[in-house]
Amino acid sequence: MTLPPIEFYFDFSSPYGYLASHRIDHIAERHQRRVAWRPLLLIMVFKATGGAPISSSKPKWDYAKRDLARAARLHNIPFTLSEPFPFSGTAATRAFYWIERDHPAAAHRFAKAAFDAAFSGGRDVASIDGVVEVARPIGVDVDQLRAALGDPEVKQKARAETEAALAKGVCGSPFFLVDGEPFWGNDRLLEVDSWLSGGGW
Amino acid sequence: MTLPPIEFYFDFSSPYGYLASHRIDHIAERHQRRVAWRPLLLIMVFKATGGAPISSSKPKWDYAKRDLARAARLHNIPFTLSEPFPFSGTAATRAFYWIERDHPAAAHRFAKAAFDAAFSGGRDVASIDGVVEVARPIGVDVDQLRAALGDPEVKQKARAETEAALAKGVCGSPFFLVDGEPFWGNDRLLEVDSWLSGGGW
Repeated sequence: MTLPPIEFYFDFSSPYGYLASHRIDHIAERHQRRVAWRPLLLIMVFKATGGAPISSSKPKWDYAKRDLARAARLHNIPFTLSEPFPFSGTAATRAFYWIERDHPAAAHRFAKAAFDAAFSGGRDVASIDGVVEVARPIGVDVDQLRAALGDPEVKQKARAETEAALAKGVCGSPFFLVDGEPFWGNDRLLEVDSWLSGGGW
Repeated sequence: MTLPPIEFYFDFSSPYGYLASHRIDHIAERHQRRVAWRPLLLIMVFKATGGAPISSSKPKWDYAKRDLARAARLHNIPFTLSEPFPFSGTAATRAFYWIERDHPAAAHRFAKAAFDAAFSGGRDVASIDGVVEVARPIGVDVDQLRAALGDPEVKQKARAETEAALAKGVCGSPFFLVDGEPFWGNDRLLEVDSWLSGGGW
């Protein structure tokens, strides 16, 4: 029997989501589990929860920049905050789901590449051109991708995935569901690991 | 040479602050450090940071209730969410600083007792009567305390302490300063422990 995957929800513009993207697959592998990568549109989550980008409050953002750099050092993850910040992860999310429809493995490679481009490569992944440049080395047909990014069905898919996440109680990025148990934040990954080891506590 | 204390900022109504109150002294002791307990008025912090009680968003609060109970089980800390929630920690904060002025050790006992009354005793610590009942077994003169809670100077002290915390970058509860390094959240205490072990990383 195959155990269900760990669900990993994130927005491509989320720096804590980026840190989690470097950790979650390894944690899952240790427990012989797979990970379902589910990008979402954080702006829709903010509307549902009354949230706001952490960078919108100077005191919180001053803290978060220090906390992010420190967490990256702790976990040996390269990290440079992209400028401008915040940026939109919408185009990358649409690209992910369009790629995933026919090529799930390529979508996973795209997601990792998009996060790395934004948070260790200092590259633009908010624009259509930026997303296309991330997708090109993955082997994606970039002309088709460019057309897909304007397709109403592709746009709707990204919204529908976010609605589905909200219905499951997802309220931020990164967010994990482990057999239905919710964990919010890169800082919950030790607990995710412990939960997977012991079947809860 | 005595190393400076770890600064522990919290609001008495903060459930994550309560969990931290059961952990921070032990962590400090392991590193031969003391802890300066600094209650604050979270409402002033929210005004400065654009924050809001986590219970004001239903999706976030549904998550937090589960997360709090789970963290309490993980750390073997008794935990019952007091009703009503949120409540005001203002009277308890004023009491703390009034007690501390002449009796620092009693103030520490009062703080622990107030947190326990609220989050494992299911008792009211928001009202003046509630605060007095917490202070009575500590050996505090409760008639003097009752008078002090209405004293403009005592009220101002609680505000001034919060202003001082904000000036140091404190942006939530619980919040720790370890030799100037800021850590926000009960979920940062493993990092506080690690920081104290290695002198940073």
